[in-house]
Amino acid sequence: MGGDHGPRITLPACRAFLERYVDAHLLLVGKPEQLAGFSHPRATLVAASEVVGMDDPIEIALRKKKDSSMRLAIEQVKLGAAQAAISAGNTGALMAIARYLLKTMEGIDRPAIATRLPNAKGGATTVLDLGANVDCDAGDLLQFAVLGSALVSSLTGNESPTVGLLNVGEEAIKGSETIKKAGQLLRAAALSKDLNFHGNVEGNDIFKGTTDIVVCDGFVGNVTLKASEGVASMIVDYLRAEYSNGVFSKFAAIVSYPVLKALKKRLDHRSYNGAALLGLRGLVFKSHGSADELAFGHALDRAYDAARNNLLDRVRARIAHAAPLLARHEPAAPVDAAALHA
Amino acid sequence: MGGDHGPRITLPACRAFLERYVDAHLLLVGKPEQLAGFSHPRATLVAASEVVGMDDPIEIALRKKKDSSMRLAIEQVKLGAAQAAISAGNTGALMAIARYLLKTMEGIDRPAIATRLPNAKGGATTVLDLGANVDCDAGDLLQFAVLGSALVSSLTGNESPTVGLLNVGEEAIKGSETIKKAGQLLRAAALSKDLNFHGNVEGNDIFKGTTDIVVCDGFVGNVTLKASEGVASMIVDYLRAEYSNGVFSKFAAIVSYPVLKALKKRLDHRSYNGAALLGLRGLVFKSHGSADELAFGHALDRAYDAARNNLLDRVRARIAHAAPLLARHEPAAPVDAAALHA
Repeated sequence: MGGDHGPRITLPACRAFLERYVDAHLLLVGKPEQLAGFSHPRATLVAASEVVGMDDPIEIALRKKKDSSMRLAIEQVKLGAAQAAISAGNTGALMAIARYLLKTMEGIDRPAIATRLPNAKGGATTVLDLGANVDCDAGDLLQFAVLGSALVSSLTGNESPTVGLLNVGEEAIKGSETIKKAGQLLRAAALSKDLNFHGNVEGNDIFKGTTDIVVCDGFVGNVTLKASEGVASMIVDYLRAEYSNGVFSKFAAIVSYPVLKALKKRLDHRSYNGAALLGLRGLVFKSHGSADELAFGHALDRAYDAARNNLLDRVRARIAHAAPLLARHEPAAPVDAAALHA
Repeated sequence: MGGDHGPRITLPACRAFLERYVDAHLLLVGKPEQLAGFSHPRATLVAASEVVGMDDPIEIALRKKKDSSMRLAIEQVKLGAAQAAISAGNTGALMAIARYLLKTMEGIDRPAIATRLPNAKGGATTVLDLGANVDCDAGDLLQFAVLGSALVSSLTGNESPTVGLLNVGEEAIKGSETIKKAGQLLRAAALSKDLNFHGNVEGNDIFKGTTDIVVCDGFVGNVTLKASEGVASMIVDYLRAEYSNGVFSKFAAIVSYPVLKALKKRLDHRSYNGAALLGLRGLVFKSHGSADELAFGHALDRAYDAARNNLLDRVRARIAHAAPLLARHEPAAPVDAAALHA
């Protein structure tokens, strides 16, 4: 039901998904009158009487709308009827409801949001947290590294993905007190073989692809993600404007079309759609609210891959292995729900 | 003497600068044997026996190398012999020496580093802090807003530049406790006409050009700046590779050459070279260490413009006007010199 477009986008994406994966089943959770037109032997309707609005305060979504499609979808995961839930709705509400219903895993204080960004190696760098936690301590950052490693190993098959700690310089003495402490914890985790810790990385390393995973607090992650999208948009818009400016450049644009098309595809955030909410006792994925059919399909694929490759078991195994380290740090402050990014 | 290239780059840039501005005078501070070949009626050599290395620890630069070119250059400003100092050397050392010799202005706890980034409006967004202060409180962010407003008004003539507070969402309830408090201070400063505060902005707003100035702590600023450079490099490298890949795209590259050249110029960080160290009782500008002649020339121009347009007086006037607000917050923690970005 969620996102800027609702079932107009999600239903065709679901149909295409079912055609791609002949062993997949979907539970479509939402208002029956909007979903009834969709019929497929591997799709089942789960009726919800309410929908969480994109601007609903988290309190309303969590306490008042107890029969919302978002809540019922996550309940399917809790009940074991579904292996993963996907939503294009209100991020803050999704995180709050998922956390409330599913709870965090033992050893994890705060769930994190992880997404992939394109890098110069032709692959993707997984970055977390992206906005669930605006104030993080060193122990949180260690947990994010463990969660991110489980995610990347389940999605790529690389059992020992490299982890970088986002900082203002590569040297261990750089950064805030929190970051320096996090560096110590991550180096300890590398010694105990819990993680493949590369060391500190800088902002440009995300796009160089220096490490498979980059760990940061949700404030830094959110700002960095949006700034990066801003630069890419500025460049693409600039090229478009230049190419439509004058006969010669219009000609150049036609000749350059395949190159620009390839660039657009390469930068297309739709291909990277499908952020994972990690650290919960169930799989929940978040699609961009503005996702179109193609983008929403990528989010479905990502959730499907995570479920098929036992992401939850991998997270549990990594947490169990890292338990002595994870237990060493002081408990985190409660999440500030109002600060969550919608 | 500083930067990756030293006098080989800085001296030709100085000569071109003196040709551009017939009323300008330069004091060239460094090792006489390396600078003696430079002769100009409006240039004077100031001999220094030592040079701060790019990798020198701040302690060494500050306590041991008392006759370094960096230190002597800043002393020229302190003595009133120069209106501004420019260095392409070690940033951490430059900030520490500048702070030690010049001291911060009354009402300012920590100096900040400000730079300009290109935006989609065809102008530039001034962002601060970029790495001098990895842990900032709300009062520091207010001070940065005052300093940034003075800088932009002196360089552009716009007496009421808009200020945005970098955050994870536009709503005032978003963000960490520090950011929310900073928002309150900035709104108060807007009411007292100390600032033209726009409100919260997100990472992409830097490149949209939503506000003239974007304020953030040095950790976020540094990571955002480097991530943005990383995205831009990835795109430019990608276009270059695509265009050299196959006969058809090589043809496209030739036809597209003017567009790509314009893009490169637009994104060229050399045009934005020359970061200001703000909040000190004297003008100090920092060039990228990797600056070439063109880039170093931009840093010289920026320092010249700031001196000519009385940046220091503007900063003092703004601080005096905002004094009641600036005094209201608790004192900042001491700067962590080791955390400074070199």
